[in-house]
Amino acid sequence: MDPLALHDLRIAVDAMGGDHAPEAVVRGVAEALREADGFRCLLIGNERALAPLIARHKPPLSRVDIVHTEEFIAMDEPPKEAVLQKRRASVLVGAEFLGRNEADALVSAGSTGALVLGAARHVPMIPGTARSGLAALVPTRRRAAGDRGFVLLIDVGATLHVSPQQLSHFATMGAAYLRAALGVETPRVGLLNIGEEATKGDETLRAAYQILVKMRGIDFVGNVEGKDVPAGGVDVVVCDGFTGNVVLKMYEGVASAAIDLAREAGRANFLWGLGIRLLRPALAALVRKTDFAEYGGAPILGFEKLVVKAHGRSNARAIRSAVLVTREALVNDLLGQITSEISQVNETFFAQASGQ
Amino acid sequence: MDPLALHDLRIAVDAMGGDHAPEAVVRGVAEALREADGFRCLLIGNERALAPLIARHKPPLSRVDIVHTEEFIAMDEPPKEAVLQKRRASVLVGAEFLGRNEADALVSAGSTGALVLGAARHVPMIPGTARSGLAALVPTRRRAAGDRGFVLLIDVGATLHVSPQQLSHFATMGAAYLRAALGVETPRVGLLNIGEEATKGDETLRAAYQILVKMRGIDFVGNVEGKDVPAGGVDVVVCDGFTGNVVLKMYEGVASAAIDLAREAGRANFLWGLGIRLLRPALAALVRKTDFAEYGGAPILGFEKLVVKAHGRSNARAIRSAVLVTREALVNDLLGQITSEISQVNETFFAQASGQ
Repeated sequence: MDPLALHDLRIAVDAMGGDHAPEAVVRGVAEALREADGFRCLLIGNERALAPLIARHKPPLSRVDIVHTEEFIAMDEPPKEAVLQKRRASVLVGAEFLGRNEADALVSAGSTGALVLGAARHVPMIPGTARSGLAALVPTRRRAAGDRGFVLLIDVGATLHVSPQQLSHFATMGAAYLRAALGVETPRVGLLNIGEEATKGDETLRAAYQILVKMRGIDFVGNVEGKDVPAGGVDVVVCDGFTGNVVLKMYEGVASAAIDLAREAGRANFLWGLGIRLLRPALAALVRKTDFAEYGGAPILGFEKLVVKAHGRSNARAIRSAVLVTREALVNDLLGQITSEISQVNETFFAQASGQ
Repeated sequence: MDPLALHDLRIAVDAMGGDHAPEAVVRGVAEALREADGFRCLLIGNERALAPLIARHKPPLSRVDIVHTEEFIAMDEPPKEAVLQKRRASVLVGAEFLGRNEADALVSAGSTGALVLGAARHVPMIPGTARSGLAALVPTRRRAAGDRGFVLLIDVGATLHVSPQQLSHFATMGAAYLRAALGVETPRVGLLNIGEEATKGDETLRAAYQILVKMRGIDFVGNVEGKDVPAGGVDVVVCDGFTGNVVLKMYEGVASAAIDLAREAGRANFLWGLGIRLLRPALAALVRKTDFAEYGGAPILGFEKLVVKAHGRSNARAIRSAVLVTREALVNDLLGQITSEISQVNETFFAQASGQ
């Protein structure tokens, strides 16, 4: 992409989404704009709320546009109803900008459901793919020098049932994202299954295995099991949205159970409490390593524009990362890559089918 | 069940299954027979290997029968092929005893796949149910006095795709097992889903929710998510075998990642190492609490006879528990309860359908 085109990158940001919005969003956007060039941000939200924050955090004004809207969707609103009733909600206005080709990407730390539904309503799918994949970056062991300490899980809830074709698209999209956005040169892709052998799982998984193993654009390591997600050794884990959602939430449950157990052990016994206090820096280092504030956000892939979900608890640093990682993905032409790879996968393996 | 009938209980035990077979099996059986009365054991395996172990561990000889067979199936053999080729393998001979009504239950610490396939070949299903459910007991937080520190997850791999009817049978079978075998008076049952609302998930899950909520024999708490499995607060989690298998293996992966991380932290820093040493008794207590050696084993439900998978790493104590828990389940007429509850569920909700 030439430098001139680079200057035209437009990242729409839902200024009202997330637990710490709008302040964390405005501050994160200001930091991102100061740190990197070649893009501008559209801050979508209530201008009366945004104006004083812009005065305080001082983003470069020539690279910020405010798009005013009164409405927004709260985290705890049922997304389907909210998306129908609040047509001028900040996240939907952002999706409209993508649909009209007036922005290249949308970042939101608000409701995931509203973001997926908003994108589905306003943004066309990449030709040849029928379903979007919601990705999540979950922490893993680092066993080898090449391990990043996280794995991209796709899908974690956008598409509950998948076809072999859709799984092959998720593989392509997930690998392309890691390459373009996070600089993982040759992402290793695994297919989530109940055993390593190619014959494991149902017909869909067996068919997907046979396609993935022949795909040229990815480094397919074969089937992986539930234990391989936290174990690491793979960069992308492809699965249906139901299983991915359960896996993602297991992480949440295990983490909070571990914290509770540590707290109880600390109260139960003086020496145990001392042990936990001694380990606190190690735990903090672990949390930092696996901190969503560094990854930027979780992409929702399959749309013609890039849609990025930042964590609901994002602080300014996490928003800054989300915006910078989104910029990186755009600069490296993520969408162009995905579009051409999906077309190639479809031609090679699904010549008869169009879409899924 | 009257005391006379109790004396007729016959538990077949695969003497050749598991990492520590046959010694741990013979010793565990001897301990179980000494500890409780009213049942006898059929030890199935190579009599040349078993004779010296019986001489050493001295089970009450009047309550032990040896059934000789030369063949057995190793843990790492592909189960489908092994079951076809080794027709006299100890686990298959055990399943034949069930099929001929010459034993009431079968316990094996050997290959899960071979046990499920062997049971499916030789043991009829309970009338009105078409698929077996493989259960697993996984550790959880204890948040309330009633919490046992584990949850029974069913299915974890016997049946990859399920119907609403099959899910309702899993719920009944899992709850009945906890009542009969482990004394959980009113097991709370949850349906694994991607959200708590009744409208979450696909058509199968929405239909299953509507049935479970109306079922009289169980205490249905609603949908539970991945995070609720380790969090506790529910006794039975019902799911399809694919998702259950992934969840079960996630546990394995998280546990081994945590151990590795602790070891690394201990090496990286003297104070962290000290902290981990101080916490070792707490960790040991935690492991004890969640130790499979206490639960006895994981039932495979849906057959007319009780089939129990003991952990592959079972020592004598774990085999002893598996046999005693199996005895407990038989004494409390688990199979009679499941049979009558399944018939009731089918009559109430699936009057048209027979089987699934």
